[in-house]
Amino acid sequence: MKKSPDIEKIRSQAGQGQFSQIAEELSRVAAEDRAKLLAALPESQAAPVFRFLDPAYQEEVLHGLSQPQVLRLVEALNPDDRARLLEQMPAALARNLLTGLSPAERRMTTELLGYPPQSAGRYMTPEFLVLTPDLPVAEAWEKIRSQGKRAETIYVLPVISGDARYIGIIHLRELVMADPEQKVHEFLDDTLPPILATEDREIAARSIQRTAALAAPVVDAQGRLLGLVTVDDAMDILDREGEEDLARAGGGAEPLNRPYFSVSVLRLARTRFVWLLTLAIAAVLTVNVLKVFEATLEAMVTLALFIPLLIDTGGNSGAQSATVLVRAMSVGEVEAGDFLQILLREAAVGLLLGSMLALMSFVPVWLFAGHKIALVVALTLVCICGWASAVGAAVPLAAWRLGIDPAVASAPFITTLIDATGLIFYFLIARAVLF
Amino acid sequence: MKKSPDIEKIRSQAGQGQFSQIAEELSRVAAEDRAKLLAALPESQAAPVFRFLDPAYQEEVLHGLSQPQVLRLVEALNPDDRARLLEQMPAALARNLLTGLSPAERRMTTELLGYPPQSAGRYMTPEFLVLTPDLPVAEAWEKIRSQGKRAETIYVLPVISGDARYIGIIHLRELVMADPEQKVHEFLDDTLPPILATEDREIAARSIQRTAALAAPVVDAQGRLLGLVTVDDAMDILDREGEEDLARAGGGAEPLNRPYFSVSVLRLARTRFVWLLTLAIAAVLTVNVLKVFEATLEAMVTLALFIPLLIDTGGNSGAQSATVLVRAMSVGEVEAGDFLQILLREAAVGLLLGSMLALMSFVPVWLFAGHKIALVVALTLVCICGWASAVGAAVPLAAWRLGIDPAVASAPFITTLIDATGLIFYFLIARAVLF
Repeated sequence: MKKSPDIEKIRSQAGQGQFSQIAEELSRVAAEDRAKLLAALPESQAAPVFRFLDPAYQEEVLHGLSQPQVLRLVEALNPDDRARLLEQMPAALARNLLTGLSPAERRMTTELLGYPPQSAGRYMTPEFLVLTPDLPVAEAWEKIRSQGKRAETIYVLPVISGDARYIGIIHLRELVMADPEQKVHEFLDDTLPPILATEDREIAARSIQRTAALAAPVVDAQGRLLGLVTVDDAMDILDREGEEDLARAGGGAEPLNRPYFSVSVLRLARTRFVWLLTLAIAAVLTVNVLKVFEATLEAMVTLALFIPLLIDTGGNSGAQSATVLVRAMSVGEVEAGDFLQILLREAAVGLLLGSMLALMSFVPVWLFAGHKIALVVALTLVCICGWASAVGAAVPLAAWRLGIDPAVASAPFITTLIDATGLIFYFLIARAVLF
Repeated sequence: MKKSPDIEKIRSQAGQGQFSQIAEELSRVAAEDRAKLLAALPESQAAPVFRFLDPAYQEEVLHGLSQPQVLRLVEALNPDDRARLLEQMPAALARNLLTGLSPAERRMTTELLGYPPQSAGRYMTPEFLVLTPDLPVAEAWEKIRSQGKRAETIYVLPVISGDARYIGIIHLRELVMADPEQKVHEFLDDTLPPILATEDREIAARSIQRTAALAAPVVDAQGRLLGLVTVDDAMDILDREGEEDLARAGGGAEPLNRPYFSVSVLRLARTRFVWLLTLAIAAVLTVNVLKVFEATLEAMVTLALFIPLLIDTGGNSGAQSATVLVRAMSVGEVEAGDFLQILLREAAVGLLLGSMLALMSFVPVWLFAGHKIALVVALTLVCICGWASAVGAAVPLAAWRLGIDPAVASAPFITTLIDATGLIFYFLIARAVLF
């Protein structure tokens, strides 16, 4: 038998900080009273009580509370408790929490709801119009006319089953041409893959790009529809991703994400400093490699003249491989499983490029510094380009396998890595040929 | 008085290659006969005759011919004659020429029609539904239902005036909510800027992105509507532009524009070779600079140890500036007129970054190579970063002013430039401090 609620007793317990006891108490009262009792407590006490509630009750309680009350309680949870709650929370509740918010509030709330940064969940709108398969077209039109104002788009209308699972979309265009007596399911487009809310935003954006749809459906782990990512957001996402890749490829600055002139000189310097320092520290490797070969260098100072040329060429060759592969990975053209094949291809490309450069450089270097140095430079070019292309491909692939964004391992980072290792080739070849 | 046509005479003249005489002849016959006479000639003879016709007559004749006949005649013109013809051609004719073609054929035809590569004209669809301002909503719906199948989009409906000039768009969404008796112009959205067909594709794409519209109207120089660039094309355009910028920033490879594994090793090497060679030739500068300072280097081989570190840091700093500015320019945040302001800002950022690196490097270099070398390296870092940032900003800005795509002058090119000049700073400072 369920006990009747005793607000006074609970208030006094809360005053003494007996939050877990209250949670126990609440699990024994009638379901409809739980939310009321919790709402009767001041926020600072309701939150810790909520935290001690069993997840099954947590969800139930949320249904009985207003949107701001729910958000405050969810906010008070630890991230992992929040994630567990969210997994159980019905899609309808999650959607209710997000409806009616400004884009900025929505971004904050999705963060609170535990969708990872840059996930599809962060970019979805909960303001869409949903249809059911057996709805006649005439009724669908009525719904669109009466409720369409509140939806972010009416051009893509998701269709859900009785248990809120996503089954496909209707393009408004089809309804325009349809007979009023036809049923919605006759126009169902089930070719759009639903996107998990926790998946990366780029997956949603690329899906929209690939299918030329005007929105992508976002679902939870049970396949229940949570929201739509619309094409205008998809454009911004791809643009932002492109900007990030570019910023990292070009000397590794952080993307500004805002207009150039709105950023102060100090802030500009800050976005660049960490990368510049990291790369400079990586470049200390080159100092140490050269130190090892200082005696060789001392014996033949002419070797120093070609250092920048050789490391630049190796660096560029590696950067080319890295850039092509980072792009291919972000578009989904290659997978980490293709590792070996890619490595061999890139090494072959590099050896080919190096051989061509070696052939073209031999005579000029001979005239400039003698045939022995020319031979050293030519052999180094072949080795350095082959090596650089393989490294340029391997590093982003490895980063990807380790779950690091491959773009982080892009051009300048690889260039610096290759500089140091390239110098080793150079001096080993020089020692073998010259001495 | 107009002469009556004489097909036999014209045929015999054409057989003798008297094309300019036939053109003269045609200008004297009645307007409605010109196209007929021209169509009566075999293509190989009609084309040269057409070329000699006055542009005013050319346009007239085109109206009387079928689409394939027109395309063959237009193809036979010189590019400049073609451009002149196109300027005079009414929008309706241009649109007719493009309607009903596959995307690939359309791309070819727009090329033929003289729209520059990567212009908005190359990406527009002529298959849209056009409305007029005074049309009642009910009639608009009728038009959409009966003709909507052939249009590429019905979500954006351009509105034109009596003389075919673009005046705004209607969002289908507004019509869905509208009263059937209302007039189309009550829902007119005239905030979308029309895009000139000859303008860069990125301008159309960015306009769509900025306005979150589903299409951008494309017009000719007289403001007459030619087509729409739709949001799915806009996405592809921005993605492609991003890929190009990225490819150039990362060692300057040409963008593949196709899946990685579909490109052979030989072809991969070819897309990269020209850039690699160009950059290697540019790097010959560094060899020459070092040659000038060979004596200094010989006297103090330790100086060589820091060459890669210094040129890498300078290169990265310059690449950061270049990348940020290329992006800001392509998004339209900065203009060539801001030249001086940008230069000063970037130099300030560079000097700041260089000073921080100098401070951090001083003690380690001192311990490694003595205080004199430490001083030289520190001073060089300040100079090289300030200089590199300014050059990194100046080169793309200058390229832009000269009408060259600023992305061409991106990271690797600037890095190589800075390598050579940075070495000059290094050795001049070294001479001053050490000897």
